Amino acid sequence: MSQSAILSPSVAKMAEALIACPSVTPAAGAVFDCLEAQFAPLGFEVIRFTTGAAPDGPVENLLAVRRGPEGSRHFAFAGHVDVVPPGEGWTSAPFSPEIRGELLYGRGAVDMKGAIAAMVGAVRKIPADAGTISFVITGDEEGPARFGTLALIDKMREVDAIPDLCLVGEPTSVNRLGDVAKIGRRGSVNIFLDVEGVQGHVAYPHLADNPITRLVALLAELKAMPLDEGTDWFQASNLEVTDLTVGNPAHNVIPAKASARISIRFNDCHTGAGLADRVAEVAQRHGATARPLISGEAFLTPPGAFSDMVSAAIEDELGFRPELSTSGGTSDARFLKDLSPVIEFGLCNATMHKRDEAVALADLEALARIYRRIAQAALAR
Amino acid sequence: MSQSAILSPSVAKMAEALIACPSVTPAAGAVFDCLEAQFAPLGFEVIRFTTGAAPDGPVENLLAVRRGPEGSRHFAFAGHVDVVPPGEGWTSAPFSPEIRGELLYGRGAVDMKGAIAAMVGAVRKIPADAGTISFVITGDEEGPARFGTLALIDKMREVDAIPDLCLVGEPTSVNRLGDVAKIGRRGSVNIFLDVEGVQGHVAYPHLADNPITRLVALLAELKAMPLDEGTDWFQASNLEVTDLTVGNPAHNVIPAKASARISIRFNDCHTGAGLADRVAEVAQRHGATARPLISGEAFLTPPGAFSDMVSAAIEDELGFRPELSTSGGTSDARFLKDLSPVIEFGLCNATMHKRDEAVALADLEALARIYRRIAQAALAR
Repeated sequence: MSQSAILSPSVAKMAEALIACPSVTPAAGAVFDCLEAQFAPLGFEVIRFTTGAAPDGPVENLLAVRRGPEGSRHFAFAGHVDVVPPGEGWTSAPFSPEIRGELLYGRGAVDMKGAIAAMVGAVRKIPADAGTISFVITGDEEGPARFGTLALIDKMREVDAIPDLCLVGEPTSVNRLGDVAKIGRRGSVNIFLDVEGVQGHVAYPHLADNPITRLVALLAELKAMPLDEGTDWFQASNLEVTDLTVGNPAHNVIPAKASARISIRFNDCHTGAGLADRVAEVAQRHGATARPLISGEAFLTPPGAFSDMVSAAIEDELGFRPELSTSGGTSDARFLKDLSPVIEFGLCNATMHKRDEAVALADLEALARIYRRIAQAALAR
Repeated sequence: MSQSAILSPSVAKMAEALIACPSVTPAAGAVFDCLEAQFAPLGFEVIRFTTGAAPDGPVENLLAVRRGPEGSRHFAFAGHVDVVPPGEGWTSAPFSPEIRGELLYGRGAVDMKGAIAAMVGAVRKIPADAGTISFVITGDEEGPARFGTLALIDKMREVDAIPDLCLVGEPTSVNRLGDVAKIGRRGSVNIFLDVEGVQGHVAYPHLADNPITRLVALLAELKAMPLDEGTDWFQASNLEVTDLTVGNPAHNVIPAKASARISIRFNDCHTGAGLADRVAEVAQRHGATARPLISGEAFLTPPGAFSDMVSAAIEDELGFRPELSTSGGTSDARFLKDLSPVIEFGLCNATMHKRDEAVALADLEALARIYRRIAQAALAR
């Protein structure tokens, strides 16, 4: 019997079981029960806890640790069991997993219950004495994420379960499984700009102070502000204005207030706070206020031993090496990078967040084998 | 008995009678009946007619003409009997004229039923053989004005009643009666700017086309566009951005569309169409569309014989000459200037469009005397 045949039933079944537990963000209860039931037979200590209060909580999280021999290395799998709302128009019910042809359909199939099933499948085949393995699973990655992985990191510190390396199972593959792994992500900061002026009649502009005039000048200056030209591993940081708000129906009135929202996606040349300060300085010169909301800092796990392990595991299984990318949005790797080097690798993201989200059954099997190779290499170092 | 004592009862009573006819724009019916009743005994031919359909009509108008001897000159008084909505918080009911102290309170007291009463009072004292006098009275100056004075102008052409000079009774006085007369007004054009882009995720700006980027650049260029530096009689033309609209609640999304509205108040260096063309050219370069709405062209009655008549009449009555101004918003003079030289002069505008709108009884009397002096001078030329 091939290794594939041994793994496949349990990985797909596990994915189906997780999909069958509705867990629109924030996840709680059943989906964690389902997951916990997998860990106990494998010798994991499971810690479940709930943190936070409204509006961004409470959030349920799960930390599972199987400690290897004294002094052994520690490899962590990280992920989330919450999913985005399914929306309308599915061919089959989003929380009733269904196999049609070679695909398993259901919300979370690729983002990322399928990957969690593959992680569990991988660990089944790794002897307990190979080293310490942990699962860092949050119920809030798709939401505000304030009491999710951040709370798990506190718990990991509390129980002395800091990994040497960490792999996040986000769906990084694009056209086929294994084509892209992420060794970094840009950071993200939104900044809310407000300009107060003095309302007045448009025929008497000298008696008014048009806040739009200053907002336009401010935005033009911000858009022209040099950030960087990219690095070896990152594309250039970028600023976009994502909203403008005045709401003045009167054609002959200069309004009293004008607002804008900007989004900066930035590489590791910057910090969120540093950019917020630069924007605030420009805003102040235009008589505007700037309120930053930092979603995450940039992180980079420079290409080296860890990325080589990931690339080798993919190549051994699939025959090609992945592109090492830093593109795209944020993930919980933005938090986990404070503990250890972190890389993201998972299923194909073509259907994530869409209706009829689906994963190829063959990919589930292959991903479990790749994850096993990565974990074993990480523990062997 | 002084001239003042002769005029005063009828001017104030006439103003009260007009105020007592509620006529929130567009005016119709009773307020015109009240006015028509004044004209017949004075030998005027009265033409009342209603023009236009929804949404900007129907609108009632009144043209009253008393023709002088063959070849005599023709002087026109122009004005409106519609008023803006009274709003809340009046001390006495807005359509129940009330004298408290030296003031007559009521909606329209200064803008401009009081002035129309003064016009009628003035004409009572002018012999019928002095020349042709007309009243050009619309029921829609405060509203869209599409079927108001424009329709009256058609009627004036139809009945061969084109004046040699025209005085509009808008409340031009500022601190005291007679301190300001308007010999021109700037024109006004609103332009609606729309930029269509391509929506996308803010982390992948190369896959999107942010319309806000282009809108900000467009607005910055428009605001920097040289218009003029003013003329001997006009302040510089001015462009204000009066609204911005995107309405994008998603922090991580580049929106598909961004819009702005600009208002240009322009002097007689420009036409509305010329400015609209210039803005459209700039907009096109930024991939934006521009839809102009021209409210009125600039007009100027250059200082000369007519303004001298007005200034002399004010000086003879009050002892000082008015400032000849071109500031402020639009009025129906923007249309009437196509027929003859036009000047605006009327009551103090401090309470116009506000609650407790009020006119000094003494000003009503003085204005009637000034109007009489102006009309007599105009007919004597």
